[in-house]
Amino acid sequence: MKKRVVLALGGNALQKNGETTAEAQKAVAAEVGELIANLADRYEIIVAHGNGPQVGNILIHEETAASEGAPAMPLETAVAMSQGQIGYWLTQAINNAFLKRGRNAKVVTVVSQVVVDKNDAAFKNPTKPIGQFYSEKEAKKLAKEKGWTVKEDAGRGWRRVVASPKPIDIVEKKAILDLANDGVIVIAAGGGGIPVYRTKVLRKLKGVDAVIDKDYAAERLAELVKADIFVSVTAVSNVYINFGLPEQKALEEVSVREISNLKKYGYFKAGSMLPKVEAAARFAEKGGTGIITDIKSVGEALRGKAGTIICK
Amino acid sequence: MKKRVVLALGGNALQKNGETTAEAQKAVAAEVGELIANLADRYEIIVAHGNGPQVGNILIHEETAASEGAPAMPLETAVAMSQGQIGYWLTQAINNAFLKRGRNAKVVTVVSQVVVDKNDAAFKNPTKPIGQFYSEKEAKKLAKEKGWTVKEDAGRGWRRVVASPKPIDIVEKKAILDLANDGVIVIAAGGGGIPVYRTKVLRKLKGVDAVIDKDYAAERLAELVKADIFVSVTAVSNVYINFGLPEQKALEEVSVREISNLKKYGYFKAGSMLPKVEAAARFAEKGGTGIITDIKSVGEALRGKAGTIICK
Repeated sequence: MKKRVVLALGGNALQKNGETTAEAQKAVAAEVGELIANLADRYEIIVAHGNGPQVGNILIHEETAASEGAPAMPLETAVAMSQGQIGYWLTQAINNAFLKRGRNAKVVTVVSQVVVDKNDAAFKNPTKPIGQFYSEKEAKKLAKEKGWTVKEDAGRGWRRVVASPKPIDIVEKKAILDLANDGVIVIAAGGGGIPVYRTKVLRKLKGVDAVIDKDYAAERLAELVKADIFVSVTAVSNVYINFGLPEQKALEEVSVREISNLKKYGYFKAGSMLPKVEAAARFAEKGGTGIITDIKSVGEALRGKAGTIICK
Repeated sequence: MKKRVVLALGGNALQKNGETTAEAQKAVAAEVGELIANLADRYEIIVAHGNGPQVGNILIHEETAASEGAPAMPLETAVAMSQGQIGYWLTQAINNAFLKRGRNAKVVTVVSQVVVDKNDAAFKNPTKPIGQFYSEKEAKKLAKEKGWTVKEDAGRGWRRVVASPKPIDIVEKKAILDLANDGVIVIAAGGGGIPVYRTKVLRKLKGVDAVIDKDYAAERLAELVKADIFVSVTAVSNVYINFGLPEQKALEEVSVREISNLKKYGYFKAGSMLPKVEAAARFAEKGGTGIITDIKSVGEALRGKAGTIICK
């Protein structure tokens, strides 16, 4: 029996040197395709990915060029658009990496809705800046017109901020599981998923403008598809303590308890390593293996020979 | 055994009265959700859909607001984005229509690549106008810079034109079939599919800027998933001969041969009823049932009591 692995690709994993054309991002996706084709003999792979820079550009285009006949799409729909975009690039890259090896891949991207709690405290304190910069005047006008929360962003201008609620459930989980059980490589929960909540009475789904952390969503996906291993793929081979200082130390095998202690002492930065460490530790807490490493070390890390590996 | 039905929703099926906001399009998607929830007890449903107005607006936004840091996505990637967008709306609408009936839907959108032939004659004569209007000067400059073909569009300005090649294969067909066999309602081949061709030696996939007719792609999908019935859902209950004239006649049950004769006499207009009639007749030729009707008549048409029904 192959082990089932959920790979969470970092938000910038498809962009190198700030190159944002489709061609440049497809070239980076090709590297992901190679990785997955190399892993697929030994593991069942499910891929989740970030969408920060991509959905940012979609929103900038939508909002800058909006007109009456071509109105801007809301954030939740823009996330869906970014899932189509990035999912297509990854699917094609995986197909082509298999073809290079003389085989056909079974791979699909599933457009994924991720359920959040409308009463999540995050909605009372939106912190995640998205889309373009505005002047204070424009920002306050938009806030009034559209009900946005806006904030000044480190002296660079004003931006909309949205909530980053916790993922609870993935609407498409059964279909994703069916596909994985049928040996299909699935790309799902892109960009943390399209944020939706359930209405009170009928439990109907309704989109909400928010940004779900892609590591938390990917970890939830890993639980729901009963994965054995969760890997947060980032820019560094290991989680470091005191990174850049003389006493820096790469974490290798660590327990959930050790992570919990390091977290208490503030070793992991919010918005950077913290969500990755929390997601991997949560997955380990539930009995799986949580790994944080970079793309070139994933294969070694899965054999226990590289990366930061968190176990219960 | 339930019969398997592929529904091809018209390009404008998600827009009413020219309303193009996400909210307005979701409201129309809700009607599609109701239809499918009503049909799902008796039929296995696979949905394909057009994307004309949606991908048009995406392209307008991408091109109007393009900058160095946020370059415009090419048409093939814009199709992928529209699959995410429309697929999300339809998936959620179907989920909610089931929830209204106290049930959970199994429904997913699969991002779909459709293979075309790089040597398709259509590439030598691009005819499909897409994106925004330009002045003659701008259009000719863009043609030079980007290798576009541009044409004057009925005195309204200049536009880019792209090829509309025939669909040959759907890359994700096996996964779509797996899902349908597992009882999942699948949304696939959106907008006619992301156009890709295969390179000569390795048969690798490569995106190409083109527009695949959604009825032809949906019919191909219907063949590949071994559907029993193909329905092209359009604005009218039946195909008409001499529509609007005193001698107008609604076609009800017709044979492939009759359709072929009517086609010869020029009764079906290119870019309007012709692709729907050709797709339905082709499906009938292969032994299935091809139907053309409007959304409110689909249920009756599937029982043989409405619509234009084409059989061999």
